[in-house]
Amino acid sequence: MNNTPPESATPEDTLTPLTLRRVGIDTYRENVAYLHRECALYRAEGFQALSKVEIRANGQRILASLNVVDDTAIVDCQQLGLSEDAFTMLGVEEGHPVSVSQAEPPASIPALHRKIGGERLYREDFRHIIQDIAELRYSKIELTAFVVACDQNELDREEVFFLSDAMSRVGRQLDWREHPVVDKHCIGGIPGNRTSMLVVPIAAAHGLLCPKTSSRAITSPSGTADTMEVLANVDLPFEELGKLVRTHRGCIAWGGTSELSPADDVLISVERPLSIDSAGQMVASILSKKAAAGSTHLLLDIPVGPHAKVRSMPEARRLRKLFEFVAQRMGMTLDVVITDGSQPVGRGIGPALEARDVMRVLTHHPEAPVDLRLKSLRLAGRMLEFDPDMRGGDGFGIARDILDSGRALDKMMDIIRAQGEKPFDPDHPPLAPHCFEVPAPGDGVVTAIDNLTLARIARLAGAPKAIGAGVDLMARIGDSVEAGQPLYRVYAAYPNEMTFAHRLTERDSGFTLGSPAEITRLNVEF
Amino acid sequence: MNNTPPESATPEDTLTPLTLRRVGIDTYRENVAYLHRECALYRAEGFQALSKVEIRANGQRILASLNVVDDTAIVDCQQLGLSEDAFTMLGVEEGHPVSVSQAEPPASIPALHRKIGGERLYREDFRHIIQDIAELRYSKIELTAFVVACDQNELDREEVFFLSDAMSRVGRQLDWREHPVVDKHCIGGIPGNRTSMLVVPIAAAHGLLCPKTSSRAITSPSGTADTMEVLANVDLPFEELGKLVRTHRGCIAWGGTSELSPADDVLISVERPLSIDSAGQMVASILSKKAAAGSTHLLLDIPVGPHAKVRSMPEARRLRKLFEFVAQRMGMTLDVVITDGSQPVGRGIGPALEARDVMRVLTHHPEAPVDLRLKSLRLAGRMLEFDPDMRGGDGFGIARDILDSGRALDKMMDIIRAQGEKPFDPDHPPLAPHCFEVPAPGDGVVTAIDNLTLARIARLAGAPKAIGAGVDLMARIGDSVEAGQPLYRVYAAYPNEMTFAHRLTERDSGFTLGSPAEITRLNVEF
Repeated sequence: MNNTPPESATPEDTLTPLTLRRVGIDTYRENVAYLHRECALYRAEGFQALSKVEIRANGQRILASLNVVDDTAIVDCQQLGLSEDAFTMLGVEEGHPVSVSQAEPPASIPALHRKIGGERLYREDFRHIIQDIAELRYSKIELTAFVVACDQNELDREEVFFLSDAMSRVGRQLDWREHPVVDKHCIGGIPGNRTSMLVVPIAAAHGLLCPKTSSRAITSPSGTADTMEVLANVDLPFEELGKLVRTHRGCIAWGGTSELSPADDVLISVERPLSIDSAGQMVASILSKKAAAGSTHLLLDIPVGPHAKVRSMPEARRLRKLFEFVAQRMGMTLDVVITDGSQPVGRGIGPALEARDVMRVLTHHPEAPVDLRLKSLRLAGRMLEFDPDMRGGDGFGIARDILDSGRALDKMMDIIRAQGEKPFDPDHPPLAPHCFEVPAPGDGVVTAIDNLTLARIARLAGAPKAIGAGVDLMARIGDSVEAGQPLYRVYAAYPNEMTFAHRLTERDSGFTLGSPAEITRLNVEF
Repeated sequence: MNNTPPESATPEDTLTPLTLRRVGIDTYRENVAYLHRECALYRAEGFQALSKVEIRANGQRILASLNVVDDTAIVDCQQLGLSEDAFTMLGVEEGHPVSVSQAEPPASIPALHRKIGGERLYREDFRHIIQDIAELRYSKIELTAFVVACDQNELDREEVFFLSDAMSRVGRQLDWREHPVVDKHCIGGIPGNRTSMLVVPIAAAHGLLCPKTSSRAITSPSGTADTMEVLANVDLPFEELGKLVRTHRGCIAWGGTSELSPADDVLISVERPLSIDSAGQMVASILSKKAAAGSTHLLLDIPVGPHAKVRSMPEARRLRKLFEFVAQRMGMTLDVVITDGSQPVGRGIGPALEARDVMRVLTHHPEAPVDLRLKSLRLAGRMLEFDPDMRGGDGFGIARDILDSGRALDKMMDIIRAQGEKPFDPDHPPLAPHCFEVPAPGDGVVTAIDNLTLARIARLAGAPKAIGAGVDLMARIGDSVEAGQPLYRVYAAYPNEMTFAHRLTERDSGFTLGSPAEITRLNVEF
């Protein structure tokens, strides 16, 4: 028996150091580290499954959740594996020696526990939590705990402000050094609602600075960035985008995934699978991105309808008040419009079909969708009234002049060319090759269209990955149709995608036929 | 352009079926499926990262969360990978064709959302949720959402009963067909507290049916099952265990991981990394296991102390009342004792050291730890009083007679032989080869011992994996020590584990020295 105390050796002296291996698993905004079950370090340290470890290499350090592996094809006993997110964040090459130790929990965990316990948190608590989240120091379990604890019954409006403010301050923050900087956002849920691509050129043509960055589709068949990408390059470095915006007063680009309000993307990674979409989190997500993007004035579109995100006027009004409170605390001017979200806007659903609709409105094409034109003009009018020199009520007429005179088209073409034009003919959009029509099952009037079902059909047909895939509507609420008359046409890129979409339309076309009296009329602004 | 509607082909017709691959990652009570990013099915179905998929093969079906993979060493484009848990649950061989589709969410998800929204749930809701959890239909994210939503401020005592009852009814349920069936449980946190190994033979020698199943260590340096395993086989099939218990009136075996109250193990997989240990969840965890094991009478040990799980008497009393309420609703007789948890019980911490202490008490060895003997006799006395023919207050004396007459030792040897005896000499326990002593830094009286630190030292030294590793205490609270006198001895299996343990003892020995007046005295039953 050896009775002398050991010398103060470091683990590096007594254990062979591990080498780094990249494990090609997309753990979706969670840092995961993989150790083999028989690895000496794993056995010695008494790590628990899912426990938090700290990984250090080359002066860098990250936190990760530990997964135990039994397959040497993933990691062997001399390797530490990192998932894609973690590997990128550590920024060290494969094969590099790494050291691993039990991590101290992230500094904000006590605040998380107070929130779980139902306490109000202070501004500093939200700052620390959001900092840790943005740096992927939270595991999926901790992240979920935060999201659930903050869910609707838990955050008061002051806390929503603290959260929004904290989110806007991690990551990149833009400062355009002029005033106003206008932006427009829709809370989503309405397919084909591509008003930004008309509002931005109108506002920019009027002279307002309108640096619009938008998202790609996540669960929808197309985001503004996907549709704009049919016409122009949307993935530009921030520096180039800044120059372009100053020259042309506007842009329609992709916001990137993590430069502005990166904590938002991390939070969304658990909110989505959990279908949690609370008012507080929606407000924080939207306003933090806009504040980080340097917007001073925001026009917000809240569509209401039986198949929209917001289903009643009282709910829309509550949401509006929360947006207004938080925007005011953040020093942002906000104008909220509650709009008709009872059916898709325009005819097309899917990138190329929507780009066609937008270009038809800009070029006064005879088949330009009237509803898209009208909604865009109304929103553009409200946005023009952010101009301090414009009288309330004058915006709509001026917006219409800008559109009808061709100045909006000219501005759009300037922006397209500046971002990098792609060939596009609105009369011959690049539609996907496989196509079928969905006929009316009987005579009647269209009384309802389910936004969610049509979005799902367009996605099954391949949108947005296949830019020419989607749904082209041939009837709207209030239209009389006869049995067999096509309600819409579906375009799919591949036969099996056509099959998937077709099977859904047979189960549920998304259209309801009936008598005109059955149409739900919403008392909305427009 | 093809305008004819496609025939109703199934995905199996249009896509090559995938074959099953086992991916050696222990996802720890979560079913995870792996698809390659370029897999045709992944692209076609528009799956989201972390979305829930249903996997069918050979008439079996399971739900799993989807991970996207970029490395063909894990899965290629023709394979579907399953993590260890999921692979075992599906029960189909590698290479078998499998089909994958977007899963309907588990049926209990609406109830989960009501709980997140702060509502009380009904008995049926808990049944459905627990059923889905036990069948691994919840992702880690959904599981965390449930645990957080149920955390202490959220469940009233009636709901704790619903939860406990639901948990006890999934999985195996034992019925011993006699009355009473007695059991004993400690809420944990006190190293060396191996009273069960003395209480069971005393109660069984008296004739009470005492089928004790216990857990292995999770975060502690040894569980009762680990310590018993030094003396006997503890991993017996339920059928054999049943026969053995009827013959000998008792057993001390491992409860297995998932046969009794399997939902408990799943819930613990997120409670532990989150350090959530709410009263409601503790009560449901313990009472559901005991009810499923067929116990009619339970003696519960709640140790209180500055470094115990429960730190004050008011907290212990609140916990006792919750246990009592739920046990009564479950039809279980419960006797709660609040005990002194201010320091470890016995001398040894770690499987072999604890087994030595237990056998010394049973054999009246001169170095038998007095505190372990006394606490065990007091608990055994209370348990004997579950016998309807015994007068209140007589239990302790009878328990002492059973121990001192050697009947408890005889019973223990019967049980050990029946389970499968292992060679063990209490005078020469199989201690780990590397050893060092921790000396008192000065003269004084031991005023406090930190249970958590000593447990951590024993774990770093290799317990419970290395059965001979651990800590052997040489001083207790109230003892006077001189500078340099050993406070305890640490046994480690490997040099590097000795290094880890030694480094911790240098930072924090776990012992506080001072004057006798600084000792905190607890007013507990014993």
